Amino acid sequence: MNKKIEKFGKLIKKAEKILLINHIRMDPDAFGSLGAFYYILKKIGKDVKATNDFLPPENFSFLESSDIIETGIDIAEFNPDLIISFDAASIGQLGETYIKYENIFKQKDFVVIDHHMTNSGFGSINIIDDKYSSTCELAFDIIEKLDLDKYITKKIATLLTAGIHTDTNIFYNQNTSSHTLRIAAKLMDFGADFRSTMYNFFQKSSWERTKLFGFVFDKMKKSEDGKIIWAIITKKDFKKTKTGDEDTSGIINRLINIDGVEIAFLLHELGDEVKASFRSKEFSVGDFCASFGGGGHMLAAGFRSKKNIIEVEKEILDKLGKKN
Amino acid sequence: MNKKIEKFGKLIKKAEKILLINHIRMDPDAFGSLGAFYYILKKIGKDVKATNDFLPPENFSFLESSDIIETGIDIAEFNPDLIISFDAASIGQLGETYIKYENIFKQKDFVVIDHHMTNSGFGSINIIDDKYSSTCELAFDIIEKLDLDKYITKKIATLLTAGIHTDTNIFYNQNTSSHTLRIAAKLMDFGADFRSTMYNFFQKSSWERTKLFGFVFDKMKKSEDGKIIWAIITKKDFKKTKTGDEDTSGIINRLINIDGVEIAFLLHELGDEVKASFRSKEFSVGDFCASFGGGGHMLAAGFRSKKNIIEVEKEILDKLGKKN
Repeated sequence: MNKKIEKFGKLIKKAEKILLINHIRMDPDAFGSLGAFYYILKKIGKDVKATNDFLPPENFSFLESSDIIETGIDIAEFNPDLIISFDAASIGQLGETYIKYENIFKQKDFVVIDHHMTNSGFGSINIIDDKYSSTCELAFDIIEKLDLDKYITKKIATLLTAGIHTDTNIFYNQNTSSHTLRIAAKLMDFGADFRSTMYNFFQKSSWERTKLFGFVFDKMKKSEDGKIIWAIITKKDFKKTKTGDEDTSGIINRLINIDGVEIAFLLHELGDEVKASFRSKEFSVGDFCASFGGGGHMLAAGFRSKKNIIEVEKEILDKLGKKN
Repeated sequence: MNKKIEKFGKLIKKAEKILLINHIRMDPDAFGSLGAFYYILKKIGKDVKATNDFLPPENFSFLESSDIIETGIDIAEFNPDLIISFDAASIGQLGETYIKYENIFKQKDFVVIDHHMTNSGFGSINIIDDKYSSTCELAFDIIEKLDLDKYITKKIATLLTAGIHTDTNIFYNQNTSSHTLRIAAKLMDFGADFRSTMYNFFQKSSWERTKLFGFVFDKMKKSEDGKIIWAIITKKDFKKTKTGDEDTSGIINRLINIDGVEIAFLLHELGDEVKASFRSKEFSVGDFCASFGGGGHMLAAGFRSKKNIIEVEKEILDKLGKKN
């Protein structure tokens, strides 16, 4: 990988105009890694533009980087010497921008920086390593190896921290290594604002979302042996609590963290469908959800159904009963 | 401090029998730092005993160290050459054990290891430094400086991690430094089980406690401007949810983390009293609670009252109204 990074360094040196892109449905890891390179490349005198089909979500605003991403850039007119993609695991994740300017992406030096195991390597240079917790962790290593760490400011350090915190679930996920912690330490020395990223992405909740959690915890049900815990949210419930699909994030993790539970699931109405989210401590919910036409991982999976939510609940419980 | 550690090292070398003690109402930091030294000192051939007025709480059992602490040791008979205290900020925190054997504590070499700013230094050698997030972080540095880190096992690393995680609130509190993160990285390299300590002390909840959270989030109230959020738990509510005082931990932090709130408080009935817990983002709740005969810090404080819970609620809201 060091040779690839060296080559990447040479491309940066040579390039005058650089285009940065990250994946659609931008998360803090995609935004932080792109943002860090955006500021550093500007500082060393490059003409840099960053693009995505969509602007970053509202809740990224505390990172004070609203001026990084531009949508609808005329890439043909900008005519970059070098394109860098961050945290995108496939070409599809580059959205309409890629489709529209496919020729340019194919003609130019195109460096893909990512940490997803499934990344097929769709660039002309692919710096991909799934040992990293996050693209931000990988980005830091690249920045350091290219001797660009002297340009890291407090703001850049916070951007990189945001991706590390969210992709590791604050060092809880298995992808956290001692190397991740050492990089977090270095970022803290560069002034990274740990508290803001943790507060904004993990601790903070709205009044409505907290009420929704209250509703769910109050109404949740369990099997007689306590090993299965589940809850249902109907459209009516969303309306009553003034919440929506996006407010359900975090609920299923709270259910699976209840002592003694082995499988947890949450059903909620979304449009004319029912969305089912599963977590488990051992049982393969990935296989289970596949039997409903869904999928996912061993311990975290889901599916969607057009059936009535009460029917879906009954069907799941029947099937789970049969597993015993 | 290095000289004190050197001297401490010499005392360890000289000693045959070593008594370890930590503070009453033992927390993971007090337990982890003591536990680490317990195993290491045993491994280098010392006769070690560890004591406290009480055994560790039930929820420490995953640390598989139930055989460390003995209550009611006859210290006069054991007759240690060296006594080491962990994480106790004052003599009072050593409980009845100290009172009963005061003479022995005063006659022997007595090393106090702690990170609390308020520690007066009640030992014959005091290794106290409030730059450390936790006594476990400090303990690791001491172990390393005494060249005892070669004895750190996976179990010891996990014990030390437990104290760092809980005292920093998983690296969220201001006391987290890059040094803390570097030590966490080293502990991970020693095999520390990060997930267990995080799961058991932060993520895990009981069915009943989760229901209580549901009840509170469902019933919580807010001021018209949304800047004050509060909730009340009566004895009846505890009975209905089969919960108690200890299940309220974590609730007040959830309330203050609601977007837009400036002051949060929780009132709950406890025996024949009302316990009030306050958190704020700026307003000094320490001063506010002092006006009710309580106290605490700027952003976290509390008091107790013999009045009726509804009266206490009214009084608080009246006073908070007046502050505007």
